[in-house]
Amino acid sequence: MSGADWIAADWGTSNLRVWAMRRGDVVAEAASDAGMNAVSRDGFEPALMALIEPWLDGPVEVIACGMVGSRQGWAEAPYQSVPCRPAGRLTLAPTTDPRLTVRLLSGVSQAEPADVMRGEETQIAGLLARQPDFDGVLCLPGTHTKWARISAGELCHFRTAMTGELFALLERHSVLRHSLGDGWDGDAFDEALDETLSRPERVATALFTLRAEGLLNGEDGPRARARLSGLLIGAELAAMKPYWLGQEVALIGAPRLNEIYRAALAHVGLEARAHDATELVLAGLTAAKEAG
Amino acid sequence: MSGADWIAADWGTSNLRVWAMRRGDVVAEAASDAGMNAVSRDGFEPALMALIEPWLDGPVEVIACGMVGSRQGWAEAPYQSVPCRPAGRLTLAPTTDPRLTVRLLSGVSQAEPADVMRGEETQIAGLLARQPDFDGVLCLPGTHTKWARISAGELCHFRTAMTGELFALLERHSVLRHSLGDGWDGDAFDEALDETLSRPERVATALFTLRAEGLLNGEDGPRARARLSGLLIGAELAAMKPYWLGQEVALIGAPRLNEIYRAALAHVGLEARAHDATELVLAGLTAAKEAG
Repeated sequence: MSGADWIAADWGTSNLRVWAMRRGDVVAEAASDAGMNAVSRDGFEPALMALIEPWLDGPVEVIACGMVGSRQGWAEAPYQSVPCRPAGRLTLAPTTDPRLTVRLLSGVSQAEPADVMRGEETQIAGLLARQPDFDGVLCLPGTHTKWARISAGELCHFRTAMTGELFALLERHSVLRHSLGDGWDGDAFDEALDETLSRPERVATALFTLRAEGLLNGEDGPRARARLSGLLIGAELAAMKPYWLGQEVALIGAPRLNEIYRAALAHVGLEARAHDATELVLAGLTAAKEAG
Repeated sequence: MSGADWIAADWGTSNLRVWAMRRGDVVAEAASDAGMNAVSRDGFEPALMALIEPWLDGPVEVIACGMVGSRQGWAEAPYQSVPCRPAGRLTLAPTTDPRLTVRLLSGVSQAEPADVMRGEETQIAGLLARQPDFDGVLCLPGTHTKWARISAGELCHFRTAMTGELFALLERHSVLRHSLGDGWDGDAFDEALDETLSRPERVATALFTLRAEGLLNGEDGPRARARLSGLLIGAELAAMKPYWLGQEVALIGAPRLNEIYRAALAHVGLEARAHDATELVLAGLTAAKEAG
């Protein structure tokens, strides 16, 4: 392929993904592990060019969202404050290649309780581009799961739970790494979810129980893995009850995470529509390109 | 020095500590990082000899407690089940040096809810050697904090909270590592403790708030560190309420941890006597040597 009208970029902590866009369609895509954590201040332009140079046959604009716009990123794209139309502000990043114009989307901050997002606001903007009348709650499961109240086209309020990061830490680095196998057990997930949803304080003791059950009863790995996930998501749902109780909830995430959270929400009587995060981040970047 | 009546050893996951005992006194001590995680099956005797060989002038008996008696340890010292007199059973470990007799103390297990300990039972035995009539609850803060009900000289029931491990994981590996400084803020600790003690579900959202406060308000590191500790210990106290409510509670831990937990318990109206874990593990090993 050659030529792109513009380039969309989702640049997070661990990864960089880019899409060459022509007449509204993705005509090429690429990705690397040059996430913000792996790139020094001077490394952003080279890391981007390493992926997009084959697509360039003249000047091109790149619209990027995510941690690339943080203080430690390519340039700081100041937060918008809630309430706001998410992904509504662009900041120019300094470039040396004359063909390149790079603009970074702002994240969103909240003063009370203190909270921030960078990247998810673009997925939310993508959903609002497709469903301008959406009124309800969005759950964006991930490393830092976001719950957001949307009304009248604006992001009104949001909260973050570190559920995904906690799961990953416990799975990789804690004593539970010896107890978690591959696979999944839906009943064990539901049971654990119930436990901490109704008694969130139980997380504190239930984690080590997984290890002890492995040692004493030869508890199998898939059950322990599903239980750990259920315990953490149950505690998250307990904390987020003011968000989801009696509300329309939609999910924006990776397919596997959407599936897990859909099961969790079904368990509390909610039928959540699930949207693919990659599709929506592209829709949000496209909306920002069109507006900006 | 030369000659030891016997040798006491506390052999955990990360460290090995040994004491040369003569007529009830410690006459020499040594330590290494040859914890169970760093030693292969054949490595236990050499790791021990590296520390104690200078003390040997004839046959000697070593009494050891901790993970060295686990299935992956030197030899498996089968768990005693609750209720039991803790540190009441010794298992011979295979040795090649003819001067050496090594016996390993059993850990304690509980079937329902599933739980295990290895090492803490010896500290508990040490406390019971000093206070045979102790009736109440012991809290042993650490990587895996244990809460134990003691009555009539027996360990009746116990639970484990992974509070210390969670704190360490969040401090070292999570996004919060950017927000936690050195130092301490006692008011911030108390406030955070209150928050999750009364609303344990708040842990899920309060963790990321620490990060957001750092980003948005330049929240200082000592306050964030004390808050993280308070949030986790508050949630632990919420889970352990059936243990401590209206009980006599004593602490067995390292001095700094004892101090933090004593402040936490004072906050809920309990005056806990604090015992040094090293002193009590030695007392427990001594009691096992005398009994065995």
